[in-house]
Amino acid sequence: MARTAVDRFEQRKQTRQLLIDAALELFSKSGYEYATVDDISNAAGFSKGAYYFHFSTKDDVLLELVRLWTESRAAVLAGAEEVRSRDDLKATLTAFFAYDDEPRWPGALLEFWAQALRNNEVSKRLSQAYAAWRKQLAEAFARAGVAEGAAAEDAASVALASHDGFAVQVAIGSPAAKAMTAADIADALVAPVEQTARRRAM
Amino acid sequence: MARTAVDRFEQRKQTRQLLIDAALELFSKSGYEYATVDDISNAAGFSKGAYYFHFSTKDDVLLELVRLWTESRAAVLAGAEEVRSRDDLKATLTAFFAYDDEPRWPGALLEFWAQALRNNEVSKRLSQAYAAWRKQLAEAFARAGVAEGAAAEDAASVALASHDGFAVQVAIGSPAAKAMTAADIADALVAPVEQTARRRAM
Repeated sequence: MARTAVDRFEQRKQTRQLLIDAALELFSKSGYEYATVDDISNAAGFSKGAYYFHFSTKDDVLLELVRLWTESRAAVLAGAEEVRSRDDLKATLTAFFAYDDEPRWPGALLEFWAQALRNNEVSKRLSQAYAAWRKQLAEAFARAGVAEGAAAEDAASVALASHDGFAVQVAIGSPAAKAMTAADIADALVAPVEQTARRRAM
Repeated sequence: MARTAVDRFEQRKQTRQLLIDAALELFSKSGYEYATVDDISNAAGFSKGAYYFHFSTKDDVLLELVRLWTESRAAVLAGAEEVRSRDDLKATLTAFFAYDDEPRWPGALLEFWAQALRNNEVSKRLSQAYAAWRKQLAEAFARAGVAEGAAAEDAASVALASHDGFAVQVAIGSPAAKAMTAADIADALVAPVEQTARRRAM
């Protein structure tokens, strides 16, 4: 490739990245429905033409965000394969629940779920991701020796539900979210309940 | 009151109830943003005038639904006061997670959360309700002998998060929701993890 073609390629990639970032910002702060393609383009510093070079509809960039979010969680859960102990499992769950690296995801998640009601593709992709993660987590719970069989699957479902519920509390700015950290939730899920009670009481 | 005044009062109450029901149906199926006041009035079989007799804005009926939902969960959690054993706690949590009596609430919840991002009143009311429930649940976990102190508060937070997460899975029609019931989640939260594993393995 000639130098100019490379530059153009890099520039397009950067434009696309800025549009995605602007969409994440707008969707997570004020909601999917309140952001127009114009708003997204303007926030990224481009014309609407630039948007339509990269995406065909507003749903398109939403699906791209769903993809990026599921990729980010899948990357964290790749660590679940290495889980051999309670501490390993706790570390993986803590990372799975935490959004310190991208605090806009919990707000965006509320929009993914709300849009899933009307958009089958969003619903399908989220369901597929959850199903895969449930399986990975159940195996991790079993390898960590915390639960096995049906109980490991239930524990995995509770861990997934806790992820979503914690994200809700963080996104709506509930004081409940400030009262506990991702590590606290992981702790409550991994440690035997009585043991936790004893340890904390010390 | 004269007979006609009573009839008129009853009729207004019924009209209001039908408008609220239509709003719940529309918000939970296609989303808050996609329903106009016209849509709500039409679906209930009334004119827009009837709507504005009862509510001043579209947000108004949303806040009324938030109130009804928090009331319905508070009514279930009133049973938490009577919790004295693991079985009591499990029964209360199962009722708290279940929406068999009104399957439209999980879908509506997604809308409450998404609207909480832009509507402070929705956010405030949800946060207040969650804070009260967290306290009630922590006390119930302690009285049931499942956890105490900080561990009881963490267990309550996980139970609340599980409620929200389970509602998400149900609302978006995830197969994960079909793989487990409200009672399964309650079971996983209440029974000591090892004991659950043993019992299920039998």
